[in-house]
Amino acid sequence: MNLVLIDPTELDRHGIVTLRDRRRAHLAEVLGVGVGDRVRVGVVNGPVGEGRLLAMTSESAVLQVSVSGPLPARPAVDLIVALPRPLMLKRILTQTASLGVGHIFLIKANRVEKSYFQSTLLQEENWLPFLLEGLEQAMDTRLPTVTVHPRFRPFVEDLLPGIIPEYQHSLLAHPEGAANLVTVLGSRFGGRVLLAMGPEGGWVDFEVERFQSAGFASFSMGPRILRLETAVVALLAQLALLRE
Amino acid sequence: MNLVLIDPTELDRHGIVTLRDRRRAHLAEVLGVGVGDRVRVGVVNGPVGEGRLLAMTSESAVLQVSVSGPLPARPAVDLIVALPRPLMLKRILTQTASLGVGHIFLIKANRVEKSYFQSTLLQEENWLPFLLEGLEQAMDTRLPTVTVHPRFRPFVEDLLPGIIPEYQHSLLAHPEGAANLVTVLGSRFGGRVLLAMGPEGGWVDFEVERFQSAGFASFSMGPRILRLETAVVALLAQLALLRE
Repeated sequence: MNLVLIDPTELDRHGIVTLRDRRRAHLAEVLGVGVGDRVRVGVVNGPVGEGRLLAMTSESAVLQVSVSGPLPARPAVDLIVALPRPLMLKRILTQTASLGVGHIFLIKANRVEKSYFQSTLLQEENWLPFLLEGLEQAMDTRLPTVTVHPRFRPFVEDLLPGIIPEYQHSLLAHPEGAANLVTVLGSRFGGRVLLAMGPEGGWVDFEVERFQSAGFASFSMGPRILRLETAVVALLAQLALLRE
Repeated sequence: MNLVLIDPTELDRHGIVTLRDRRRAHLAEVLGVGVGDRVRVGVVNGPVGEGRLLAMTSESAVLQVSVSGPLPARPAVDLIVALPRPLMLKRILTQTASLGVGHIFLIKANRVEKSYFQSTLLQEENWLPFLLEGLEQAMDTRLPTVTVHPRFRPFVEDLLPGIIPEYQHSLLAHPEGAANLVTVLGSRFGGRVLLAMGPEGGWVDFEVERFQSAGFASFSMGPRILRLETAVVALLAQLALLRE
C-alpha cells in the first residue's frame, strides 16, 4: 500500500478521516507510523495529497487529510475480458487497476465456463477490494468501473455498437490475427482504446466474426500462447509504450 | 498445457516415451485424448513435434514421438531479479518462462528479506516445475536457467563485470531513473539485453550506484509503482515490442 485510499464520503468537513479497517492495520503494523507522521493519501476518483496521523489506537487511526491538485487523468484503455476463473480474475483486477484501465467488461464467450458467472466475486461488488489494492499499489485514484455480461450476443450486438464510437481504436487479441500491435496501431498512436481479450483456448470463429463486424481490428501477440493474466499485463504495457 | 514437454533422456531409441506423472493425468483428464490421437510434444531445449498416443492406462501414457525442425531461438533477454517472497517468485518464474528469458539471476538486495533465501523453492531445483509450466503454456522448449546469489557485492563486483560484455544493453529499472525505456533503447533495437529489477521498495542508492558503475543504464517505468511480478511481465512485453 503506497497510498492510503479513502472514499470522499469518509472525510468529515474538517478533512478528518477515521480508519477502522485493514488500512488502520496496515498503517500500524506494516508502515509503523506514529502520531505526527505523514502518509500519502488519495481520494477515490479524486486528487492525491497527504494525511497527518492525529491518533492511533488498536481500533482506529485518525488522519488529518489535505489533498489538492489535478485529478489523475481518466485511463485511455477500456478492456473487454472473457470471464476467467475467479482466482485469475482477482489477479487481473488488481493488475489492471495498477496499470490504469477505465472500464472492464466481463463477458461470456463460448469457451467461458457458465459457472464462473455464479462466483461470489461478481456479486455485490465483491471485486472492489482487488481494484482498490491495485490502485493503492500504483498510487492511482481512478477506480476502474466493472460490468458483467453473462450473454455474448446481447453484449456484442446491442451494447457494443453504441459504445464503439467513443474509441479511436477497437482491438481484438486473437492468436490467428495476421497483424501485430504495431501494424494495427502504428509505432505511435493517440486516443481511446477498447481492447478485447479472449478466454483460455481463444475466441471461436463466430465470436471473432462478430467483433470484426463491429469494427474491431484483430492482431496477434506472436507465437507464444500466454495465460490471460499474463497477456492482459503484457498488452496494457505495450499500449502504454506506444501511446504518444 | 499446450505442449507436452519431455526431457531428452525420457525418449527411448525408438522415439517412445512413457509418462506416469501429471502429464499423463493432464492428457487423460483435461485433454481427454484417446489411443491414436495426436498431441503437440516438445523436447526440453530441443525441437517441437507431435506424439501419437499408443496406450493409456490409469498409470501410464505411451506416446510415439516425432520431433524435428529447428531449435527455438535462445531468448535474447536475461533477468536479474531481487529475490521476492516465494509465492511471487513462483508466478514470476512461470510467466518469464512463458515470455521467454534465457537466464534468471536471483540476487540479494538491501530490501530483500534474508529468510527468502532459505525457501525450499530455491533448493534442489524446486523451481523447475514452475518454469516447465510456463514453457508448456507458451509452447516453447527453451528452459531458462536459474542461479541464486545470496550476497549482493560478490554478485555485482565479481560476477557482473565478467558477463556484461555478452550484452548489447544492460538496463536497470529504477523509479527515479530519468529516462524511459524508449529513450535508453530507441524505438527499435537489437542484441542481447540484461535487465535488472529491484525489490518491493526499490534499490537503495548504493545498489543503483554499483549497477551504474558496472555500465547499467537506469530508466523509469513511469509514475505508477508496480508489483515486481507485474513489472517483470510489463517490461518483457515492452522489450519484445521494441525488438527489431
